[in-house]
Amino acid sequence: MTAISPLAPERFPDMPVINGIRLASHACGVRYAGRTDLLMVEMDKGTTAAGVFTRSLTASAPVEWCRSAVAKGSARALVVNSGNANAFTGSVGEASVRRTVEATSALVDCKDSEVYIASTGTIGVRLPDEKITAALGDVRAKLQPGNWQEAAQAIMTTDTYPKGATRIAVIDGTPVIINGIAKGAGMIAPDMATMLSYVFTDAALPAAVLQDLLSKGVDKSFNAITVDSDTSTSDTLMLFATGKAGNKVIKDAKDKRLADFKAKLFDLLLDLALQVVRDGEGATKFVTIHVSGAAGKKAARTIGMSIANSPLVKTAIAGEDANWGRVVAAVGKAGEKANRDKLSIRMGGVLVADKGEMAHGYDEAPVAAHFKGKDIVIEVDVGVGKGRSTVYTCDLTHAYIDINGSYRT
Amino acid sequence: MTAISPLAPERFPDMPVINGIRLASHACGVRYAGRTDLLMVEMDKGTTAAGVFTRSLTASAPVEWCRSAVAKGSARALVVNSGNANAFTGSVGEASVRRTVEATSALVDCKDSEVYIASTGTIGVRLPDEKITAALGDVRAKLQPGNWQEAAQAIMTTDTYPKGATRIAVIDGTPVIINGIAKGAGMIAPDMATMLSYVFTDAALPAAVLQDLLSKGVDKSFNAITVDSDTSTSDTLMLFATGKAGNKVIKDAKDKRLADFKAKLFDLLLDLALQVVRDGEGATKFVTIHVSGAAGKKAARTIGMSIANSPLVKTAIAGEDANWGRVVAAVGKAGEKANRDKLSIRMGGVLVADKGEMAHGYDEAPVAAHFKGKDIVIEVDVGVGKGRSTVYTCDLTHAYIDINGSYRT
Repeated sequence: MTAISPLAPERFPDMPVINGIRLASHACGVRYAGRTDLLMVEMDKGTTAAGVFTRSLTASAPVEWCRSAVAKGSARALVVNSGNANAFTGSVGEASVRRTVEATSALVDCKDSEVYIASTGTIGVRLPDEKITAALGDVRAKLQPGNWQEAAQAIMTTDTYPKGATRIAVIDGTPVIINGIAKGAGMIAPDMATMLSYVFTDAALPAAVLQDLLSKGVDKSFNAITVDSDTSTSDTLMLFATGKAGNKVIKDAKDKRLADFKAKLFDLLLDLALQVVRDGEGATKFVTIHVSGAAGKKAARTIGMSIANSPLVKTAIAGEDANWGRVVAAVGKAGEKANRDKLSIRMGGVLVADKGEMAHGYDEAPVAAHFKGKDIVIEVDVGVGKGRSTVYTCDLTHAYIDINGSYRT
Repeated sequence: MTAISPLAPERFPDMPVINGIRLASHACGVRYAGRTDLLMVEMDKGTTAAGVFTRSLTASAPVEWCRSAVAKGSARALVVNSGNANAFTGSVGEASVRRTVEATSALVDCKDSEVYIASTGTIGVRLPDEKITAALGDVRAKLQPGNWQEAAQAIMTTDTYPKGATRIAVIDGTPVIINGIAKGAGMIAPDMATMLSYVFTDAALPAAVLQDLLSKGVDKSFNAITVDSDTSTSDTLMLFATGKAGNKVIKDAKDKRLADFKAKLFDLLLDLALQVVRDGEGATKFVTIHVSGAAGKKAARTIGMSIANSPLVKTAIAGEDANWGRVVAAVGKAGEKANRDKLSIRMGGVLVADKGEMAHGYDEAPVAAHFKGKDIVIEVDVGVGKGRSTVYTCDLTHAYIDINGSYRT
C-alpha cells in the first residue's frame, strides 16, 4: 500500500534554512490518524508572493481565495491541510476558508490577504475547519526555520515519498537560496484532489517579478508533466520571497542580473515536477518525450501530451513493448500538423521509424533492452516546422487500476 | 484470451439479404492462421456511396484512397483485410492499395474509383497484398447475398464477437432494408488500428444524400463513443445504396419523405457504435453519460468526452465506486463553461450532487447498488445553458492493461 515508488530519488535533499521563513507541521486529525496533516509556514514582514493555479473551471474554494489574495502580492502565512480538499463544498467551503484565514491573520497579526490556504484530500466533504483553527496556536508554537522534510510530509496524500528541492543562485553578486516542496501522486489521487508546490527564497524581489518568473517557469515544468491527463480542482504553485538575502532589488524580470536566479528557479521547478511524475500512481517507468519538427512550440506540446496521455502508449511502456505504431497514432490524433511521410521516431536513441515507415534495417534488440530500464526516452520529429517541446509522464500499470479502482470497495 | 465480452449482445441478428449486394469471406493468411481475414463485397451497377473517415493526420494509405474515391460517389466493390493495417508503410503502402484496387477493378470490370479498400491490423508492417490479390478470384467465386455474419467475422481483429445490425425503413411508401456490420475493440486494438463499419441499403438515393445523412448520423453514434480516447489511423464508416428497392429517388436529404429512413439509419449507426463500446478492451461496464446545461451542443460533447475519457472516472466505475468527485474534476478540466455552484450530478437516476455540493440527505446505498450492475448511467447538468449531449464509454480494467501491455512480451 505505502511501498515507496521504484522511481523515487534516493533521499530527501539537505535543505538550508531560509532567513524569514519558519515552518511547522502538526497532527490535527482532519481525516488521517497517526500522521501530520497540517502545515503552517510563517513569513517575515515584507515577504512578496506569486502564484499559479489550476485552470479547472470547478476550482476549489481555497484556490479561489489564493488567486484573489495573491493579486496584492504580499504574504505572511501559509496554512495547508491534507485529508480533505474542501472542493465542491459550496458556500460552506467558502466559509471554512474565511474562518481559517481570519483565525490565522489574528494569530499572526497580518492582513487577511497575506494568508494563503490550501486543502488536499477528499472532494465534496465538508472540511472540519474547527480542527484546523483549534490547532493553529499549537502548530505556531512549533515553528522553526529548518523543518523542510516535515513540511513536505504533512501535505502528502497518496504520495509515497516527500518531495523537496533546493538551489543556490547569485543575484548581482549576492547568493540567495531557493527551497521548494511539492506533493502530487496522480493529478488527482484516489478521491484526493491536488498537486501542491510551494517555493521559498530569501531573495529580494517584487511580487510582479516573482509572478513573471513563476508563470514562465511553470511552462517547462509543472505544465509539461502528466500522470493520467486528469487536472485537479486544487492545483497550486506559489513562490514567496522574504528579501532577507540583502540583494539589490531588481524590478524587471528580464534584467540580466536575474539570469542565474531564473535558471536555478526553473531547474528547481522542473526537479519538483519530475518528482511528482516519479511518484505517479503505480508508475514503474519514467518517460521523457521530446517532440521536434512541429509547426510551433504550442503544437509540439499538444503532440507531446497526446503521446504522453495515450493509454495505449502508456500500457505498452508498462509492458516493455517498443510499440511505435501507437506513438504514430497518438501523433495523428493530436490535431496538430504532422507530415506522415516525414515522421521519424527514436526510442532510447535508436531510429525506429523514418520518413513515414519502419527505419531501414531496424533492429529491435537495443530498443527492447532500453524498454526494460526505468527511464524511457522517446523522440518524435513530425517533419513540419521548428517547434520543439519536451513532456514527462509515467507508464500505466495494474497498480494504477488497483489504487484508483479499489479505493472505497 | 478470446472470452466473449460480458457486455456482448445475446446473438448476431438475423439479417435479410439486400438486393444488389453479395458478400464472401476467405482465409488468405495475411497474418492470422485458422480464420478468415478477407472480406469481399460486390455491388450491382448503379450503387451510390458515401463515407466518413478518421480525422487522424497520420491516416493510412487505404483511408486516403477511399476518401478520394468516394468523392465520385459510386461503388462496385469493397475489399477488406484484417491482420495488417497497411498504416505508416509509406509509398510501399500506397502501391499495395493501388495493386489491390487494380486487381479488383479488372475482376469486377469497373472503374478504379468504384473500388474501396480497408486494412485493419498491425501498423508499420508491409501488407503482403500479393496474398490478397491472389485470393480475389477464389473469394469472388463464393459471393452470396446472405453472408452477413461471416462478413462481420472476417474483419474482426481483437473483437470478441462479430457486430451486425439491421433495420427496415419506409421511403415514400416503399420498404427498404438497411444492414450494417462493424469492428473495433479499442479505438486501436493491440498493435491494431481501426474501427471499421459498412452499411448497405437497397434504397435508391443519390451519393450526395447518402453523404449528408451519414455525416449527420455519425455525430450521435460513432463520434459519441470512446473506449480509451485513442483515435485510429484507419477509422472508416461507409454507406452504400444499391437502389434496388425501387423507391422514388429523393434528391434532398432534408425531404420529409426521408424522415423514417434517416431515423432508422441513425438508430442502426448507434446500435453498431454501442456494440463497439460493449466490446471495448477489458470492458465490464457499459457507461452512458448525459450532459445537459452546457453553453452549447459542442460544449456538452466536450464535457461528456472529458468525463468518458478520464482514467480516474473509468477506474472508479471498474471498482464499482460512485466517485462523483472525479466527475466534478473531469467537468472542470474540460475547458468548457460550467457553473461550479449550480453543478448537479445524478448516478443511476439518484441525485448525488446538487448546486455545487453533496445532495442534501444523499444516501449512497441505491447508487452503490447501481454501480454493481453492468449498465452505468451518469447525468451531469453544468448549470450554464441549454446544450445537451450523450456519450458512451466503458470502464478501465486490469484486462485493458493485460491486453495492451502484454501483447508482444
